[in-house]
Amino acid sequence: MIVVMKPNSTQENIDNIVKTIHSLGLEAHLSKGQEVTLIGIVGDKEKFIQKNPQIMPGVERVITVSESYKLSNKKFHPEPTVVDVRGVKIGGDNFVIMAGPCAVESKEQLLESALAAKAGGAQILRGGAYKPRTSPYSFQGLEENGLKYMAEVRDITGMPVISEVTSLKAIDAAKEYVDILQIGARNMQNFELLKAAGKSGLPVLLKRGLSATIDEWLNAAEYIMSEGNPNVILCERGIRTYETSTRNTLDISAVPVLRAKSHLPIIVDPSHATGVRDYVAPLCKAAAAVGADGLMVEVHPNPACALSDGPQSLNPEDFKTVCDELRPFITLAGRKFE
Amino acid sequence: MIVVMKPNSTQENIDNIVKTIHSLGLEAHLSKGQEVTLIGIVGDKEKFIQKNPQIMPGVERVITVSESYKLSNKKFHPEPTVVDVRGVKIGGDNFVIMAGPCAVESKEQLLESALAAKAGGAQILRGGAYKPRTSPYSFQGLEENGLKYMAEVRDITGMPVISEVTSLKAIDAAKEYVDILQIGARNMQNFELLKAAGKSGLPVLLKRGLSATIDEWLNAAEYIMSEGNPNVILCERGIRTYETSTRNTLDISAVPVLRAKSHLPIIVDPSHATGVRDYVAPLCKAAAAVGADGLMVEVHPNPACALSDGPQSLNPEDFKTVCDELRPFITLAGRKFE
Amino acid sequence: MIVVMKPNSTQENIDNIVKTIHSLGLEAHLSKGQEVTLIGIVGDKEKFIQKNPQIMPGVERVITVSESYKLSNKKFHPEPTVVDVRGVKIGGDNFVIMAGPCAVESKEQLLESALAAKAGGAQILRGGAYKPRTSPYSFQGLEENGLKYMAEVRDITGMPVISEVTSLKAIDAAKEYVDILQIGARNMQNFELLKAAGKSGLPVLLKRGLSATIDEWLNAAEYIMSEGNPNVILCERGIRTYETSTRNTLDISAVPVLRAKSHLPIIVDPSHATGVRDYVAPLCKAAAAVGADGLMVEVHPNPACALSDGPQSLNPEDFKTVCDELRPFITLAGRKFE
Amino acid sequence: MIVVMKPNSTQENIDNIVKTIHSLGLEAHLSKGQEVTLIGIVGDKEKFIQKNPQIMPGVERVITVSESYKLSNKKFHPEPTVVDVRGVKIGGDNFVIMAGPCAVESKEQLLESALAAKAGGAQILRGGAYKPRTSPYSFQGLEENGLKYMAEVRDITGMPVISEVTSLKAIDAAKEYVDILQIGARNMQNFELLKAAGKSGLPVLLKRGLSATIDEWLNAAEYIMSEGNPNVILCERGIRTYETSTRNTLDISAVPVLRAKSHLPIIVDPSHATGVRDYVAPLCKAAAAVGADGLMVEVHPNPACALSDGPQSLNPEDFKTVCDELRPFITLAGRKFE
Repeated sequence: MIVVMKPNSTQENIDNIVKTIHSLGLEAHLSKGQEVTLIGIVGDKEKFIQKNPQIMPGVERVITVSESYKLSNKKFHPEPTVVDVRGVKIGGDNFVIMAGPCAVESKEQLLESALAAKAGGAQILRGGAYKPRTSPYSFQGLEENGLKYMAEVRDITGMPVISEVTSLKAIDAAKEYVDILQIGARNMQNFELLKAAGKSGLPVLLKRGLSATIDEWLNAAEYIMSEGNPNVILCERGIRTYETSTRNTLDISAVPVLRAKSHLPIIVDPSHATGVRDYVAPLCKAAAAVGADGLMVEVHPNPACALSDGPQSLNPEDFKTVCDELRPFITLAGRKFE
Repeated sequence: MIVVMKPNSTQENIDNIVKTIHSLGLEAHLSKGQEVTLIGIVGDKEKFIQKNPQIMPGVERVITVSESYKLSNKKFHPEPTVVDVRGVKIGGDNFVIMAGPCAVESKEQLLESALAAKAGGAQILRGGAYKPRTSPYSFQGLEENGLKYMAEVRDITGMPVISEVTSLKAIDAAKEYVDILQIGARNMQNFELLKAAGKSGLPVLLKRGLSATIDEWLNAAEYIMSEGNPNVILCERGIRTYETSTRNTLDISAVPVLRAKSHLPIIVDPSHATGVRDYVAPLCKAAAAVGADGLMVEVHPNPACALSDGPQSLNPEDFKTVCDELRPFITLAGRKFE
Repeated sequence: MIVVMKPNSTQENIDNIVKTIHSLGLEAHLSKGQEVTLIGIVGDKEKFIQKNPQIMPGVERVITVSESYKLSNKKFHPEPTVVDVRGVKIGGDNFVIMAGPCAVESKEQLLESALAAKAGGAQILRGGAYKPRTSPYSFQGLEENGLKYMAEVRDITGMPVISEVTSLKAIDAAKEYVDILQIGARNMQNFELLKAAGKSGLPVLLKRGLSATIDEWLNAAEYIMSEGNPNVILCERGIRTYETSTRNTLDISAVPVLRAKSHLPIIVDPSHATGVRDYVAPLCKAAAAVGADGLMVEVHPNPACALSDGPQSLNPEDFKTVCDELRPFITLAGRKFE
Repeated sequence: MIVVMKPNSTQENIDNIVKTIHSLGLEAHLSKGQEVTLIGIVGDKEKFIQKNPQIMPGVERVITVSESYKLSNKKFHPEPTVVDVRGVKIGGDNFVIMAGPCAVESKEQLLESALAAKAGGAQILRGGAYKPRTSPYSFQGLEENGLKYMAEVRDITGMPVISEVTSLKAIDAAKEYVDILQIGARNMQNFELLKAAGKSGLPVLLKRGLSATIDEWLNAAEYIMSEGNPNVILCERGIRTYETSTRNTLDISAVPVLRAKSHLPIIVDPSHATGVRDYVAPLCKAAAAVGADGLMVEVHPNPACALSDGPQSLNPEDFKTVCDELRPFITLAGRKFE
């Protein structure tokens, strides 16, 4: 942590800060320049932050240099985390595809989607039972019935299942039926939900918030992990920018940035990032090439009749084509995909 | 709702869409241009949206022209909503200041803050008992004890109290103690929370999400109102942009935009928008001048020791000065402030 | 300037950097923490930056703490700059309104606009002769003829005139006719243009780029000032964000931020910021209240027939009303407006 | 073009607009719904836009459905454009790499860079002679001398050369020496420069502005093309967002979006997009996989001594490795790279 002093700060201001630092049992290192004086603080800075140094007399600003997330930080855990879900491995040198409908509409629709997903090569079935929708008048999901269908379809297909949870009640229900809990973009900083997901014992896929920085995202992962749950999967799904030709802007650079900062597996969701079916195939290839650990893709037996996000869903035939074209890119990226 | 056809769409494509529209009991109006063909749809469009027209053959895009929010929409409720909280009126030609500490730290700190807030002219006491914090290692609030202090300080000062709720459990607790529930920016699209706040029967102050559009915000208000709760107060608190010299960017234009679109009262929070104490005073004046219905400002007896957001908090003396300078602007804006 | 070392950096890495610093005649101050080592550099850092320390072995990142702009920096020039344009003073405790049509269309239209501007109280006439337009097929301005009309209308009304320049050729022409050169948002980092404007000897109004940070903006001002021209006026005109209910987002906080960082006068342009006539009046009041030194507003005798930006232009009657309502806010803000 | 009427608009308002449309020789199609009335306009809408329909009585908003760019529009020119530069083909099923130093510093440095670029497989040499820099105190480039070195190094290596132009004077000089003119992000809407580049007769690489929408970008291309120059190459180099872990955010989706809207070749520049050397390699692969027509990458014989953007430059050895790893991705994407 560094305190930058104002040009017109007095020696008394500086002495006062150094005294505070020492009183907390920390070390202070002074760099006095012509224009600016810096004070470096060494030791447990949390104590010093609590003193609100930004508003001490003579202070211009305070710069934090070490990250507040620890468990999700590569510095303290250099080996990549591999999450094992009923034998399907996420992370390491594996590549995983999670596919399925945006919303679970019926057992039939879900089973048909699952078979299409499996035919393409997807290992995990996704499906939404609790749907966060911008308007209260849009379809809100089948809730617990949707989860039941997911468990039933898993029993038929053998595919582990993932579903979004939007409340503590949904987590309680989901624990009975699904293999991975998904926290959606809108809930990335719903800290109560993160803690409860952490306590659930299930792996958690954490989507990036629409305007979350990568550091805020890793801090959100920290909420889950600090409850004793190491199995967090990050999912980049586009951020909000001024550009309107896609629903959001896929931040593909987030993959190498996360790789440098964290050991957690990274999944890319091109369906939600773009909102446009035609852009899903090229972005799947980009995600594989850039080094992602997998994809989340929307597949629906009949996108034209989908109750949610039909325009971005692939039909079974197109999904098969996308996967077939994608497979050599995955191999070239050095990943196992089975 | 308008369907824009691709330049190369066929007559069959057009006929097909018109047929679908008619089959739903809706009217279709065709505009055939040289470059583009438009189909206007008249009637209950929700039915048509469910058919995912964006992916019907020949369609380029679909444009929605009417808003999905109804209860919060000025078109259907032209008179301004006035929320009455124990006799303090929010909205109409009144001006209200909600002031107090970011976090409740103790009964003494809260009482001291309340007296400072009252001395400046604030009618309502704010204070955080459940604190959503980016890092799990930061101070998370006194929770139910904090709420108790709020009720006690209300009894002493006579000021109605507002506090943020972050979970269903927090709402249950808050109902016993506070007069207004606050939904924070991070929870603006936590729909479970919105619905529960709607059912609570208490007025709800809804902060704008960090990257929420005004339409999404009004749809979030709709979630609360569609539970039978008409007492929603909107609070602009800055949006996320690329500019880093302030913590967020206060979208001051949101006030006249909301005034044109909605009948709900609008509060501005310059403390969270800027994160810098020195910018609070000028932005308070700007908010009064632009026509806001009130302000939310952080006041702390000793900002240097605040456990949360000290750098943006005013001390009692500064708060008094800000309010004294602000008062004539409020009067000039045609508002009552007592 | 501070160098932050990686956690796994070696003593050799650190020694190597310190050696480089010393070899340049600079001082190095070491702060060795448990997690991180910092090296503070004192002296002329420009030399050290040229060594690209970001990529020296063991370096995590480099933090610059002093601003690169000097002439526009309040630290080195604490007194507010007052620009005098034919007796009209911009900055200090004065308030100025620049009003007129987006584009000069004819002498008659310009004169009528000028009289309307003057009737409302505007001291300076604005008008575009060189129009930067998104599409090459839109009206591009009357160019030099437009400038001639401006000079003629100045002679009739006595109002100093300001017009946008978009090329070196336009600057050459404008020097003959106008009193203030305007650099538009799209050209804020057209450095050739900035330098030529600096050399022109005329005052320069510099609009903020659509996605320029405040620091980049002050660096752009520095380009003008480093050519020996101290008369720079800054104009906030909205930044690009994801919000679409206004054309841009007026960053009202930029006014107090600039006031803290620079001595240059600050003008606000609500017409371009919002693109909507109805939002101009409230934002004018907000700008006066927040402490701006003036406004730039579009006025057109007949907005419905304006060749450019009609929808955001006020007609003469509305402009008069806006100014009449605005006047007491200006007075309350402690400004002279004559 | 569609006019959306306000809910409270009168029959007179509607009649008035229809009359105006007819008076311009255009067709009007009325869709009267319960909540909203739409008027579709068929014919040359430019005439109608000039009437500023947004501010006609009773109008809520006006929606434009056809693009204002024509020459760069795929609708009117479905075949992909292939730009031939001294035999190197850009576009179609070719893949091109443009590599070299950010700034030309000396003939030796440039030649060394060129040989490194060529060794990796790059076909075209990039190098900056006129450097747009945020601060006037940073190195501004060798200007015409830099261009001369480029021509000399082309003669030695046989590689066509590309360099950025920042003024009309720079274009005049560059025409003598280089094969492709580059327009930088900051000048994307410097329309004088675009027109002059269009008239130069040379191919033009047009970088996307930091906050330009894809439609604004294609309109900027239109400025060049409307001067009779069909050889425009688009270059995505990252957009400005709130995320700070990369210098800009590479909008990888822009590649498929542009492919759908335009016939022009598309290049990706990961060096400027991220500003971080370590992220260049993965993003090169992503760009090839997503279907880009090529890359622009910074290579410097000694990044630690580079006068500009050293931290994002690859050294010769690393560039060779990046290209070797990239090659199979290019092949897999179905491109020729020789």
